[in-house]
Amino acid sequence: MTKVNTNYLKLSSNYLFVDIARKVEAFKQEHPDRKIIRLGIGDVTQPLVKTVIAALHDAVNEMGDPATFRGYGPEQGYAFLREAICAHDYAGLPISPDDIFVSDGAKSDLGNFQELFSEDSVVAVTDPVYPVYVDSNVMAGRAGDLFDVTWSRICYLPCTKENNFVPELPSVRPDLIYLCYPNNPTGTVLSKDELRVWVDYAVREGCIILYDSAYEAYIQEEGVAHSIYEIEGADEVAVEFRSFSKTAGFTGLRCAYTVVPEKLTVSDGRGGKVGLRNLWNRRQSTKYNGCPYIVQRAACAVYTEAGQREIAETIAIYHENARKLSEAVKGMGLSVFGGVNAPYIWVGVPDGQTSWDFFNHLLTDAALVCTPGVGFGKSGEGYVRLTAFGSPKDTEEAIERLRQL
Amino acid sequence: MTKVNTNYLKLSSNYLFVDIARKVEAFKQEHPDRKIIRLGIGDVTQPLVKTVIAALHDAVNEMGDPATFRGYGPEQGYAFLREAICAHDYAGLPISPDDIFVSDGAKSDLGNFQELFSEDSVVAVTDPVYPVYVDSNVMAGRAGDLFDVTWSRICYLPCTKENNFVPELPSVRPDLIYLCYPNNPTGTVLSKDELRVWVDYAVREGCIILYDSAYEAYIQEEGVAHSIYEIEGADEVAVEFRSFSKTAGFTGLRCAYTVVPEKLTVSDGRGGKVGLRNLWNRRQSTKYNGCPYIVQRAACAVYTEAGQREIAETIAIYHENARKLSEAVKGMGLSVFGGVNAPYIWVGVPDGQTSWDFFNHLLTDAALVCTPGVGFGKSGEGYVRLTAFGSPKDTEEAIERLRQL
Repeated sequence: MTKVNTNYLKLSSNYLFVDIARKVEAFKQEHPDRKIIRLGIGDVTQPLVKTVIAALHDAVNEMGDPATFRGYGPEQGYAFLREAICAHDYAGLPISPDDIFVSDGAKSDLGNFQELFSEDSVVAVTDPVYPVYVDSNVMAGRAGDLFDVTWSRICYLPCTKENNFVPELPSVRPDLIYLCYPNNPTGTVLSKDELRVWVDYAVREGCIILYDSAYEAYIQEEGVAHSIYEIEGADEVAVEFRSFSKTAGFTGLRCAYTVVPEKLTVSDGRGGKVGLRNLWNRRQSTKYNGCPYIVQRAACAVYTEAGQREIAETIAIYHENARKLSEAVKGMGLSVFGGVNAPYIWVGVPDGQTSWDFFNHLLTDAALVCTPGVGFGKSGEGYVRLTAFGSPKDTEEAIERLRQL
Repeated sequence: MTKVNTNYLKLSSNYLFVDIARKVEAFKQEHPDRKIIRLGIGDVTQPLVKTVIAALHDAVNEMGDPATFRGYGPEQGYAFLREAICAHDYAGLPISPDDIFVSDGAKSDLGNFQELFSEDSVVAVTDPVYPVYVDSNVMAGRAGDLFDVTWSRICYLPCTKENNFVPELPSVRPDLIYLCYPNNPTGTVLSKDELRVWVDYAVREGCIILYDSAYEAYIQEEGVAHSIYEIEGADEVAVEFRSFSKTAGFTGLRCAYTVVPEKLTVSDGRGGKVGLRNLWNRRQSTKYNGCPYIVQRAACAVYTEAGQREIAETIAIYHENARKLSEAVKGMGLSVFGGVNAPYIWVGVPDGQTSWDFFNHLLTDAALVCTPGVGFGKSGEGYVRLTAFGSPKDTEEAIERLRQL
């Protein structure tokens, strides 16, 4: 009989957000009259901006006309979009349009990129961490065995208030290092100097950094790198993942991109080196057929002057939500992290409670949904994540409920 | 230093269609005045139909309004689309909407599905074959080593005029069997009885059939199964891959679906069985974020009465192209296969020529691009593929050039 990839069987059958959804559903059944406000999953609520909507309509019309209809596009993405991304997001940095690969989502790219590496590669992740980095490596057989919430072969880099959410360099060299800044779930950032420590380490030790920068658009403070390529040498060790999801409200429209600089090489296992850019191109050409033309036109419209002004207005709404939520939580006497350069607020739960305790408390007593920190890893215990992606009205109401707790 | 997945290095650096593009480009440089007509790559040319365009505009408007905006959708696809697919394409068959997974393309799903199986699984493919089945398994380490155009661990099932393009059962049991009907590249089909032989074999031997049915909409003749689930027992052994690409001209819009029946199980490697549906759901939930909402609305519009009428008109255009092309090629004294239940025509090249010889002949002497059969495998030598996806005008001109050869 045909045999399964047994690595899949090691995964717990439930995904964090599925567990949460089940608890929320149960609460809803018991309290059909209570209005639940979701500050859990990181999904946007503001509609697509006008310039993006107009670009979509125009592109749809092109697809209905034989003279302008487009079939298969380049798997890597249309040049018009790769050039706009490069000119806007990588001006002055050592990145060319050929290094940019457009896709349907950072989750897909982050999940798939590990395929390019040897099965015995050692993976390091910050803790707490976005589950996709770990789960995709579990599926590929790199994680070892699960004990409670930690995998035997994964190298965890704790990020807690004790180290100010700055991970320490690992004692044993990993092959792949996943970093996410601004961070999901903690909402914290690294200063440029703190990020440089990691790039220098990767250069010295021959590691690859997989840098998830999906929340880059939320950076407000000086001294925080918008791209890892602002750090010298990063183009020899780092892949950068970016997305239009949180930048321009594309969570339901689906467009992202991954930067694989030409200089980025790994060992070919026989004494030579091999470039990752060509390999990623081969992977995408074989297993992917490109992002829809109309969506690429929409993404391109984000880079127009009007598009930039409009998305800045939307992001300002979420920033204001974050500011007010942070204040309200501080008012409850709780410690608050993140929320300035990111749409996420990381809340230390009251002493003696677990993160699931506090999740249950907020759900039962305020009909508010948060994400328990332990769902993101062992070092997330004692925290919950709140998102600022709600509508201003819902966020105000959530704040009022928090005040009354 | 971090090490590459060395399986990637076994792939030839060029993909068939890239090789062709390079030769065509060279010809263009030398003959800038000649109009090239492409009968090579299987891309559609007719625009999206009116009903689909209208559905796209409506859905775009929803995305611009806070009351109807949609963020993350279900990774598996919206229920409205899965239910429409089930009601229309699987009426009377043992398939439920929960068995259907909507995605951005059959290429993605066919490329990714092998992840669910053990690394030592033995893979069988018909020969000639769509390169994605083989290449994705090479990347996963299942193909062995390459000798000329064949892989040492792949089980090839020759399909030539000698066996009327009906593959014989393999002498050694494979774990995974890729079948594609109507076939890409040959354009041939299996009768229901011929397909039943394969389902019965898979049931008896405990194999999984990965059934690519991307060209189902082109079936015209009686006695040909539109879905493998028309064969009793197939829901215990087969996954079916379908696409809107060729059915409704979605090659640039990107929507497909994969059917994983609940009854489909494989060995868990420790004496038990495990259902593939849950595992595919876990894979998609971890590494994919769903097809764009607006695209799913467009796909749903295909199933309306007007949508069905309109796509039938488009498909009729391609059928007529295929009929005329077949006649013209027969008029050249060449043997012709396929082209009736598929948009592909498989042409036996003149005695003494290779498929690349004939490719060069058509390009040089008629400025026509075909696909050399050997690019699809050893048994494709001696054939070329022509597609009927050109515009009627270009196809007429191609026919005229063929007549003058």
